[in-house]
Amino acid sequence: MKLELELIGQQARQAARYLGLLSTEAKNEALLAIADALEDAHEPILAANAADLAAARAAGTSAALLDRMLLTPARLTAIAEDTRRLAVLPDPVGRRYDEQHMTNGLTLGKQRVPFGVIGVIYEARPNVTVDIAAICLKTGNATIMRGGSDIAHSVGALTTVITSALERVGLPTAAVQSLTDPDRDLVRALLRLDRYVDMIIPRGGAGLHRFCLENATVPVITGGIGVVHLFVEASADLERAVPLIHNAKVQRPSVCNALDTLLVQRSIAPALLPRVAASLCADGVELRCDPASLAILTPHPDAPVWPLVPAEAGDFGTEFVDLILSIKVVEDIDAALQHIHTYSSGHTEAILTEDAAMAKRFTDEVDAGAVFVNASTRFNDGGQFGLGAEVAVSTQKLHWRGPMGLEALTTFKWVGSGDYLSRD
Amino acid sequence: MKLELELIGQQARQAARYLGLLSTEAKNEALLAIADALEDAHEPILAANAADLAAARAAGTSAALLDRMLLTPARLTAIAEDTRRLAVLPDPVGRRYDEQHMTNGLTLGKQRVPFGVIGVIYEARPNVTVDIAAICLKTGNATIMRGGSDIAHSVGALTTVITSALERVGLPTAAVQSLTDPDRDLVRALLRLDRYVDMIIPRGGAGLHRFCLENATVPVITGGIGVVHLFVEASADLERAVPLIHNAKVQRPSVCNALDTLLVQRSIAPALLPRVAASLCADGVELRCDPASLAILTPHPDAPVWPLVPAEAGDFGTEFVDLILSIKVVEDIDAALQHIHTYSSGHTEAILTEDAAMAKRFTDEVDAGAVFVNASTRFNDGGQFGLGAEVAVSTQKLHWRGPMGLEALTTFKWVGSGDYLSRD
Repeated sequence: MKLELELIGQQARQAARYLGLLSTEAKNEALLAIADALEDAHEPILAANAADLAAARAAGTSAALLDRMLLTPARLTAIAEDTRRLAVLPDPVGRRYDEQHMTNGLTLGKQRVPFGVIGVIYEARPNVTVDIAAICLKTGNATIMRGGSDIAHSVGALTTVITSALERVGLPTAAVQSLTDPDRDLVRALLRLDRYVDMIIPRGGAGLHRFCLENATVPVITGGIGVVHLFVEASADLERAVPLIHNAKVQRPSVCNALDTLLVQRSIAPALLPRVAASLCADGVELRCDPASLAILTPHPDAPVWPLVPAEAGDFGTEFVDLILSIKVVEDIDAALQHIHTYSSGHTEAILTEDAAMAKRFTDEVDAGAVFVNASTRFNDGGQFGLGAEVAVSTQKLHWRGPMGLEALTTFKWVGSGDYLSRD
Repeated sequence: MKLELELIGQQARQAARYLGLLSTEAKNEALLAIADALEDAHEPILAANAADLAAARAAGTSAALLDRMLLTPARLTAIAEDTRRLAVLPDPVGRRYDEQHMTNGLTLGKQRVPFGVIGVIYEARPNVTVDIAAICLKTGNATIMRGGSDIAHSVGALTTVITSALERVGLPTAAVQSLTDPDRDLVRALLRLDRYVDMIIPRGGAGLHRFCLENATVPVITGGIGVVHLFVEASADLERAVPLIHNAKVQRPSVCNALDTLLVQRSIAPALLPRVAASLCADGVELRCDPASLAILTPHPDAPVWPLVPAEAGDFGTEFVDLILSIKVVEDIDAALQHIHTYSSGHTEAILTEDAAMAKRFTDEVDAGAVFVNASTRFNDGGQFGLGAEVAVSTQKLHWRGPMGLEALTTFKWVGSGDYLSRD
């Protein structure tokens, strides 16, 4: 098993050396070939997916998880379309920048280059197989992927389609490799394959991220966990705050940039909270209130219909991934910043304010991948940031924070030249 | 012990929150105060250092290592001067860049911010204590340092001087903390303190770097190990190549950007190698030659005086850190690139050539932190790159490659603003 992985690593490294020197045109041609191949191979892919789903159903898997595992003709077409869209995005590889002529005689600059080999460990979504393979290919990186064992058939079928397409356009098939062996020790070994693998991206829950951190010698990009706060400061326009808060919580509660905790400055809490509650509860949001917000909302004439719950300690610092919002009344921006400092996962934080000094304090003092002023937390997303594609949202600080698009899959090297220059 | 470290982590995090918001002026004032304090405290520092040296001498420590441990009045003055020089460098923190107005209504940009808490684990050089504390302070980071147990007294004395200076200018003393407990488990625990520590920088040999990689859950910047190659391509100006090669090997053989392996294209090897040998052997360099280079050098009239040794397998891919050079004759640039691909540690690589196409191939194809054309490998250095200061030379690819100056000790956050903007 270890020997097999050693070989996979060697082959990936060799493929990476080749991919790193490909022209943008050659990489785009491969992406289009993969998109076409996906559309031609609906039948085997859907058959493999049906096998995964049947096994999962028999094992009593939840309906929500089954839906994440499911591939349909429409979903496959959408995946192919995403791959084609990647082909028209600009290629970050090879860009030279920061060039300068030094007084020591050296001409020095930086050049964007692929990482080399990127390992991706993911869970129930089979579409990640294509997303990752395509974005890594576009950036000249080889990939070693390991999908969840419950989608092994789907991952196998998709990988075969991708590698056949690579073969057709004359690229090394080792550019995209999937580990289908269900042995979890293989994941552990992949995490320690630092001779060949330059970066590991986990895509899944907190448990997977922790497992990777605990076991890896390869650098790991952690992320995905968003404990997201929005602070409504006293000067905010309350009329316009209500629909924004609704957007942040309700638009897509299952994703990591959805709002988890609303912080409201005490002076405006009586005016704001009933309107927020009315707006959110109309869409079935459960409100977990600290004593102050509970006191404001309870005596309200409309209160009986609202699903109010007294907040417990665990309701702050929690990513709900559901139609649940915790609410806390805070004295001022200092208290809001202290709460965020204590509970934030460093993913997305926002303030609503009309006061530029408050906005500056918040953006300067909050330590998170993305900080917003008068904008929904839902904007922390590769598409909204104009990145065109996204492999992950990083919540660690090394190399990249926030949505990781094409540039985030490249690194740089220094390039210096001289006229037979020796150092003094 | 774990509880103590937990407290150190919490205090560092709290100090980091404060440091991250300091003005450049306040940080510079602290640097100057530290420099002054170092000059005022020669006596206690040198006494502590003498205690370390006495113990090391009694333990039979080598003269070279004793010299690395030694502090003198002149060295302390130089350290203080370095700290003052840091005060005049530009502060990267707070810089806004990549600002754009998106079609979705968002104004989006990036802002440079400190990492937060940086852990540094180092070996025999006590001056690292001040270097690291000062550069982290300048970039708004708190530090937790762990120097080698053989310099514990020196580190303790230097840390006391630094924290007293911080106190004098009203900064939190937890900004700079040293672990002086000799227990190695403490290092292991520091490497896993990911709740409080954002990055670990090891400063030492390959063993220390590996130990950090194996045990850390905090991201580790690895580096320092330079297996450095220089390829002399057929078109190179041989006259000018000789002194450059001498510079790369002889100027400072003990550092990581010194040349280890010379690759020479076969067609010019008979003309170049005897001149290189004469130049290097005059300064006592031992040459470890592959069969082809040995054949060229052996029959030469001057050969008998040269310390030629047939190269063994281990002489390629080795960082000598000494006046030793391995030499290999290669057929062409492909063979040179293949050798470098196999043996490089990704630190520094160079080509000498008059052919622009060869230079482009080399800089495009070699995967290393720094690649040079017609310049000595000795230029891979923070000072030579105009960074003003350097904490390490990274050979991994995440976040930073090559010399790490002030900017490399900062990361970024995305800052977005809108007019009560919700996502469609």
